[in-house]
Amino acid sequence: MTRKVSHLYVLKFGGSSVANLSKIRRVADIISAYRRKRYKIVVVVSAMGDTTDKLLHLAFKLNPSPPERELDMLISTGEQASAALLAMALKSKGIEAISFSGHQAGVLTDLSHTKARILEIEPRRLKQALLKEKVVVVAGFQGKTPYDDISTLGRGGSDLSAVALAHVLGADRCIIYTDVEGVFTADPRIVKEAEKINCISFDEMLELASKGTQVMQARAIEVAKKYNITLEVRSTFSNKGGTIIKSKQSLEEAVVRGISLTEKEAKITICNLPDRPGIAAEVFQRLSAENINVDMIVQNVSRNKITDISFTVDKAEARKAFDSARLISHKIKAGEVLYDEDIAKVSIVGIGMRSHSGVAAKMFKALAKARVNIEMISTSEISISCVVRKKEGKVAAGVLHKAFGLGR
Amino acid sequence: MTRKVSHLYVLKFGGSSVANLSKIRRVADIISAYRRKRYKIVVVVSAMGDTTDKLLHLAFKLNPSPPERELDMLISTGEQASAALLAMALKSKGIEAISFSGHQAGVLTDLSHTKARILEIEPRRLKQALLKEKVVVVAGFQGKTPYDDISTLGRGGSDLSAVALAHVLGADRCIIYTDVEGVFTADPRIVKEAEKINCISFDEMLELASKGTQVMQARAIEVAKKYNITLEVRSTFSNKGGTIIKSKQSLEEAVVRGISLTEKEAKITICNLPDRPGIAAEVFQRLSAENINVDMIVQNVSRNKITDISFTVDKAEARKAFDSARLISHKIKAGEVLYDEDIAKVSIVGIGMRSHSGVAAKMFKALAKARVNIEMISTSEISISCVVRKKEGKVAAGVLHKAFGLGR
Repeated sequence: MTRKVSHLYVLKFGGSSVANLSKIRRVADIISAYRRKRYKIVVVVSAMGDTTDKLLHLAFKLNPSPPERELDMLISTGEQASAALLAMALKSKGIEAISFSGHQAGVLTDLSHTKARILEIEPRRLKQALLKEKVVVVAGFQGKTPYDDISTLGRGGSDLSAVALAHVLGADRCIIYTDVEGVFTADPRIVKEAEKINCISFDEMLELASKGTQVMQARAIEVAKKYNITLEVRSTFSNKGGTIIKSKQSLEEAVVRGISLTEKEAKITICNLPDRPGIAAEVFQRLSAENINVDMIVQNVSRNKITDISFTVDKAEARKAFDSARLISHKIKAGEVLYDEDIAKVSIVGIGMRSHSGVAAKMFKALAKARVNIEMISTSEISISCVVRKKEGKVAAGVLHKAFGLGR
Repeated sequence: MTRKVSHLYVLKFGGSSVANLSKIRRVADIISAYRRKRYKIVVVVSAMGDTTDKLLHLAFKLNPSPPERELDMLISTGEQASAALLAMALKSKGIEAISFSGHQAGVLTDLSHTKARILEIEPRRLKQALLKEKVVVVAGFQGKTPYDDISTLGRGGSDLSAVALAHVLGADRCIIYTDVEGVFTADPRIVKEAEKINCISFDEMLELASKGTQVMQARAIEVAKKYNITLEVRSTFSNKGGTIIKSKQSLEEAVVRGISLTEKEAKITICNLPDRPGIAAEVFQRLSAENINVDMIVQNVSRNKITDISFTVDKAEARKAFDSARLISHKIKAGEVLYDEDIAKVSIVGIGMRSHSGVAAKMFKALAKARVNIEMISTSEISISCVVRKKEGKVAAGVLHKAFGLGR
């Protein structure tokens, strides 16, 4: 039986956890507690509070379409500064610490500025510092391109930095410290009975994240799943245990694990399409060519050789998608294009539904009983999503939370 | 006769020149004018306004003695951000531009964090960008150490970055844009008749800078002198020509070029030293061992085998120097140590005084006539400095300005 001499934990602290000096001191206290237990610690930090947004605001005032390379040069300063400040706070508590930029940490990315993908990490300097018993503080969200330019990893990118570092350093655990106590069965601000989930699988967490639960970046969860890195999401401001995210959750048997609700999508309907083979492909190839990400797609049953197709897109892209759809409709000689922002998407997620029949029926029945009309449905192996009127979204989430026996 | 196809100018803009977005736009306009004349341009920028001071304030609140490596990691973000913002502002005017951190610009320094010296510059990326007709924007004040850590060059370090880059790139001129119109015969806030100097030598400028004229960093002037790089100091906010600083100023014949006044020094006097060989060496070796920079030194004539030694130091180091002096006095069995912050140092500077006798006499006579008492005197080949009561400093500067026929 082999036993590691000392555990290595990667801790990630988001912007709200380092928003001011007293919060940075609190983070230093948390790290101090791990050090007393002789854990080796790598810390990944985001920029303080709304620093990134403030920098972006400056940039867009100077230039409505700022070059992305320069944006990365600008916004990467936020994490660099918070990493340096945390290292200073740790030293003031007598804890040896050293900060590294993404570049210095050896995070090599591709050339896609503002949304770069990590190609590899060369953690030589981090390992040297860990050998010297230093706490390693890494500026999250950033790396360098093969041209030695600074790149950033997109929104939530510090989560990805933390998971990727946990992988290459062979960490025992990656803990995401944030301003909520973990992953909940539904958003506690909407569903009062929502409870913290103690343990959830990667797949379920991915579904929840992609369906609107904003606790962790979806890409980071994917990477954790790929390399089987156990995650924990917990609060910086409480000592309660959080939510463990791991490959399987054999002990728990709930059919449905949680409810997601999002009001961030809009629905676009192209009416009266000629119902001939390849027509759907034609529509979505054109949308894809314009880099529009489509979420749900529903095609109604054909009547008289014509049909309607509805799809949902993120509201940020909705105007562009609407314009494209009208152009496409004109080209393929379809009819009117409808636009509807007034929708909500409610989803149930759980590995259990793979082996339990009747989950969909139970969902639709619960919504019907609450007189919530379902406008679109889409399903995956471990989730079912329904589009409803926006004003009915919260009711729908509460009803489903109760129907599947979640929470208190 | 050889002729360069295109001039290369290095322009440096200080913190007050990039303090907000409208000032950054103004800087972009200035650069735009050079580009219309087809000059190749390298721009060195400082951090916006008081950014560096704000970051230092955060650091010292977290840790009263913050590690210097981490300080550099922190404060270097200021210049990186302003460089990126200026590049964006240039692009919004249709000018191709690219920003570089000190690291990316190839500025290699020694290991002295917060006051690093430049070892060499490897300007490969800058040259590539210039070949592509891009405006190159470099974050001033910073470089990297041989360990790939971020270093900074000390207060005013962006001036040094600009001059060093002008040298390695073979620039035709290095222009220091600032918030004053150039170098003046005296501080215009103190001496109303002060006039802008059109042309001044490196040596004179160095003397003025070291005597308290705060237009440019002294180290940067030394480097410009060493490599014979013609400098110009001029205002970002006016179109008037500034002051040219170059190796000789053969056309002008003034004996005295300018007056400096500083209230930043304190006077320390060790009384009743045994007047034996080596006693002065002993005192100043000990002060030097504590890294205290002494400016003027005066030793009075010995009476009865005892003497007094007075010296001036920067007020920032004065308390430390006073404590050291008392310890030294105790060890060498000298007497009381006096401390006096209430002094001003007024200096006249000019290459002309090398060949003109009677300059010192004229200075002392002018001060005497104005009933200004001289407490200490020190001279160099091209300057004479007098310590006077602080409250008489401004009068002294005005009197000397008039006596040597400077200004209007």
